[in-house]
Amino acid sequence: MPTSEEATADRLTSNQCWDYIRRAQFGRLAVIVDGQPEIFPINFAVDHGSVVFRTAAGTKLSGALSGNTVAFEIDGYDDNLSSAWSVVLKGTASLLADNEDLLASEDLPLFPWQAGTKNAFVRIDPEVTSGRRFIISNVARRNVLRGMGLYTE
Amino acid sequence: MPTSEEATADRLTSNQCWDYIRRAQFGRLAVIVDGQPEIFPINFAVDHGSVVFRTAAGTKLSGALSGNTVAFEIDGYDDNLSSAWSVVLKGTASLLADNEDLLASEDLPLFPWQAGTKNAFVRIDPEVTSGRRFIISNVARRNVLRGMGLYTE
Repeated sequence: MPTSEEATADRLTSNQCWDYIRRAQFGRLAVIVDGQPEIFPINFAVDHGSVVFRTAAGTKLSGALSGNTVAFEIDGYDDNLSSAWSVVLKGTASLLADNEDLLASEDLPLFPWQAGTKNAFVRIDPEVTSGRRFIISNVARRNVLRGMGLYTE
Repeated sequence: MPTSEEATADRLTSNQCWDYIRRAQFGRLAVIVDGQPEIFPINFAVDHGSVVFRTAAGTKLSGALSGNTVAFEIDGYDDNLSSAWSVVLKGTASLLADNEDLLASEDLPLFPWQAGTKNAFVRIDPEVTSGRRFIISNVARRNVLRGMGLYTE
């Protein structure tokens, strides 16, 4: 049974979720590190129904590969700020080690935000895909526009 | 010692992080639920050096109040897409129950995205504030602009 909160948002179908994911290039990865949640911004590509990102050694990589489930999120506004949406994938992350995988991934549009060595490719195989779309209230819309400097009343 | 990844990003000072937080209205909350990371979009307000958000009963609330640390993230681009930034707060979340707290929070600009009953106010008291700013590579900038429909070469 939906909570009162969920009752006011539309659940997206899996197809709708993937439409958003394919159009996005940038999301956030949540992993558990030492029993605590961590969030990292990542840019990513979609490859055969999975999400692939590129990273260097560090907390993001070790957290992603710790054996726990990871969560990946993208969000945004639809045209005219009439609605906001959020899509979350949950699944397991694995390092791409196979040569064929790596070669294929080199062709993915994974341009790192910053220059630097980001030699590990990580794939998230989604087990759960969920998304919600919220109708934005007029007050919230004005607030968002104000934040963008587009509403000054 | 920074990893090769971190070496290419500027660390933000606490003041810079809070400048970004005060200008944002929307972020993501990562909590641990049943040993797995979950991410939720939230809109929020800053109140006396803490982040306050409003929610209904549900996974978000129970996860936030489970006693684990929570992580809160905001991100965005600077003007001209010359750089991208991400700020993460980690700390403990607590329900605002005291009448005075609640009354004060009613004045915060916490307009929920969608209509509905969102009666719980939750405060995140930050223990760790960290932020990074990345110079965006030309390739990534074109990619972002292309995603916005602004670069068609």
